[in-house]
Amino acid sequence: MCKGPEVEGELGQRGTSQLLINFKLHTQPFSLFWQQPCCYWPINIMYVSSRPSHEHCGRPCCVPREDVLTGGAVVWEDVSEVGSSLSGIINAEKSEFNEDQAACGQLCIRRCEFGAEEDQEWLTLCAEEFLTGHYWALFDGHGGPAAAILAANTLHSCLRRQLEAVVEGMVALQPPMHLSGRCVCPSDPQFVEEKGIRAEDLVIGALENAFQECDEVIGRELEASGQVGGCTALVAVFLQGKLYVANAGDSRAILVRKDEVRPLSSEFTPETERQRIQQLAFVYPELLAGEFTRLEFPRRLKGDDLGQKVLFRDHHMRGWSYKCVEKSDLKYPLIHGQGRQARLLGTLAVSRGLGDHQLRVLDTNIQLKPFLLSVPQVTVLDVDQLELQEEDVVVMATDGLWDVLSNEQVARLVRSFLPGNQEDPHRFSELAKMLIHSTQGKDDGPTGEGQVSYDDISVFVIPLHSQGQRSSGH
Amino acid sequence: MCKGPEVEGELGQRGTSQLLINFKLHTQPFSLFWQQPCCYWPINIMYVSSRPSHEHCGRPCCVPREDVLTGGAVVWEDVSEVGSSLSGIINAEKSEFNEDQAACGQLCIRRCEFGAEEDQEWLTLCAEEFLTGHYWALFDGHGGPAAAILAANTLHSCLRRQLEAVVEGMVALQPPMHLSGRCVCPSDPQFVEEKGIRAEDLVIGALENAFQECDEVIGRELEASGQVGGCTALVAVFLQGKLYVANAGDSRAILVRKDEVRPLSSEFTPETERQRIQQLAFVYPELLAGEFTRLEFPRRLKGDDLGQKVLFRDHHMRGWSYKCVEKSDLKYPLIHGQGRQARLLGTLAVSRGLGDHQLRVLDTNIQLKPFLLSVPQVTVLDVDQLELQEEDVVVMATDGLWDVLSNEQVARLVRSFLPGNQEDPHRFSELAKMLIHSTQGKDDGPTGEGQVSYDDISVFVIPLHSQGQRSSGH
Repeated sequence: MCKGPEVEGELGQRGTSQLLINFKLHTQPFSLFWQQPCCYWPINIMYVSSRPSHEHCGRPCCVPREDVLTGGAVVWEDVSEVGSSLSGIINAEKSEFNEDQAACGQLCIRRCEFGAEEDQEWLTLCAEEFLTGHYWALFDGHGGPAAAILAANTLHSCLRRQLEAVVEGMVALQPPMHLSGRCVCPSDPQFVEEKGIRAEDLVIGALENAFQECDEVIGRELEASGQVGGCTALVAVFLQGKLYVANAGDSRAILVRKDEVRPLSSEFTPETERQRIQQLAFVYPELLAGEFTRLEFPRRLKGDDLGQKVLFRDHHMRGWSYKCVEKSDLKYPLIHGQGRQARLLGTLAVSRGLGDHQLRVLDTNIQLKPFLLSVPQVTVLDVDQLELQEEDVVVMATDGLWDVLSNEQVARLVRSFLPGNQEDPHRFSELAKMLIHSTQGKDDGPTGEGQVSYDDISVFVIPLHSQGQRSSGH
Repeated sequence: MCKGPEVEGELGQRGTSQLLINFKLHTQPFSLFWQQPCCYWPINIMYVSSRPSHEHCGRPCCVPREDVLTGGAVVWEDVSEVGSSLSGIINAEKSEFNEDQAACGQLCIRRCEFGAEEDQEWLTLCAEEFLTGHYWALFDGHGGPAAAILAANTLHSCLRRQLEAVVEGMVALQPPMHLSGRCVCPSDPQFVEEKGIRAEDLVIGALENAFQECDEVIGRELEASGQVGGCTALVAVFLQGKLYVANAGDSRAILVRKDEVRPLSSEFTPETERQRIQQLAFVYPELLAGEFTRLEFPRRLKGDDLGQKVLFRDHHMRGWSYKCVEKSDLKYPLIHGQGRQARLLGTLAVSRGLGDHQLRVLDTNIQLKPFLLSVPQVTVLDVDQLELQEEDVVVMATDGLWDVLSNEQVARLVRSFLPGNQEDPHRFSELAKMLIHSTQGKDDGPTGEGQVSYDDISVFVIPLHSQGQRSSGH
């Protein structure tokens, strides 16, 4: 294993519950800050596999590590205690730095302050009601590691703030129409005509708003520090017996049980979001500055396609039709390429994520941001309703893993590994390591398929059984 | 059974393959025209149930019937021959006229003409290649029957035209990039980099374009004749071994097999399309003319909600959050009400359909059309891949049926009816009738639940087995 780069660190204090760290890495300055250091740890464990064909050593992990955060760093044993899970990260050959970031920790949601004067009595009922959740997050950076680092250090705080703003609604049997306790009883006609909102709808809303808030913070921070970049974000939160998975980007989370493999997220790429992106260009053609064509064709058109009837589709179409090629159709397509090669405006492989506020198409003034959304899609898994088995796990990983392993292959690896390692306290860590090993072209691996991923990969394995136990013990 | 209204009919000829009928109904003039009368029949069978609690007789069916179409009318025995299916329509108490319309028939797709000069040789290969499909459609009108009648008489022609424009691509092994036969062979680098488009993608595209084209025709026709109204559209097309179901509105199609009930469409209502509609109002706030609020609240806000923190959600949210009520939040909501009562701009219960080009919010200039889409969602059922059983059917029906019967209840009725009536040549007709009876509050009916629908109802029962046989015999 190689040593990381030389890092100069400096610790400071910003506000009462924030820890500020300024450090330089390869002469590039970074500012990181933690909120609530007591119950949150950013994690990054450099894990380098031995690869049969490619002799290489890990490139630097651009993350706070032991060298930087004296006394505050977390190794995976600690992670196991916090959230019974693990993150393994591998540096592959795609970019100079590891651009994956991970974070996990407890989420302590305090009673909200506002409205306290208005209805002291109702608030008293839940004054002592603290909610505790668990939080895991993976961020896959692009255009540099800055956005991913900021996200790993900010998103949990945004989420905590958003949850604290609605926590009084969450602890009620049903979130009340009025947060500040002007309680309407179920027999009141006003109540009867109200839509039934559930506590989980507030958590979903909090996640959606937290992603937006975090995106704004990243935009401001990057601009202030003259840095650039963006990242995908995949977040899992265990709260009140449910697992919420929020995804913006192309990472993925799946549930693996003995007889079931269930996707808990879906990917947002220029291909999967084609219609939304084309629709935006249809509504605001000026966003393309006359440089791109909104229409999709099966391949890039060439001059000798002019006048021919060729296959195409527009924003309203899931199917295809034919059109006569005009000169404007020869422009570069808004979405080009297939599969892993698909690019938005020739630039970006994902259509949702955080950051990228300054990102423009090379040599133009065309911005990516209006096409790129920070809103996540949230999936809810009602863990309390599952008859949990000891070996039910959620596997979260950045795209590098899924490029070479299917959901079913990962499930097979999980099922083949866990039963034989029941006594190992680190078996979930070992499983995460093993999953990463399986992407490094080891022909003797359990899949025997020897596929190689050259991307950074981060994996969380979250055993649901221990989460369920926490929940029922609460 | 009651007799329909007095109808004055007049038959004319418009063009070579069009049949024009002008008639008056209750002094209101209607113009109907058929294209390709040889292989297409609009159908409308007035079927009135005896209801235990509500003594009523059928209101007039505003459709071409025997009285109008001398010699050309279709009764359901004929329908059975055409598409092995049936339409039953009941007049309930919601509106003065039956606003449901149905159509079914053969879809004869001829070889396309254009490009013939360019590559005679390639065209020769498929010069004799006529495709024949089957077409079933249900249209549920609102604001009068005019749009539904126009749709029943137009959409199949639009679809045929759209299919004929791409038929050469459909009969190829894989639709070629160039329609006019500048054939690129699979070893050509151009071909290799092309996305793989399937023949079914062309049918989906043709359906999407046909709905748009039909919508434009209806807009022009209604404007020219000073009429108003709109309709939902649910279309099933059996072509090349596949069943395509295109839906714009709140009708529904399901597949019922011995061990399976599969939805073949999903409904488009202000509730199911909330985010798209709110998003449009976010992008174009002027569409609400300051009269509506884009935000969703659990109930209509009142003056005394001002200043309170209340539950709300905006276009980017699937979850809920709280916000402090401002004066502008007291406006009427863009989408209001729940379930069957949900309305778009206080006016319309569906968010997709045909027509309504002139529809405005009462006493305002606010148009419904930009929020209302004519684009259908298309589902493909690969019938050739199913191991078809004699009693596998597709049930298509307007919303009146699904208001009182769930998919599972309909499936139970289908499974309880068909096995005991194997010898009856009209058993699918009888099944459709029975389904409609089951919505009329007959406590002794097979469901025993006695629910009553007061809406017009149309039902098609399409036995897949005979379709599969046609397909394999082709």
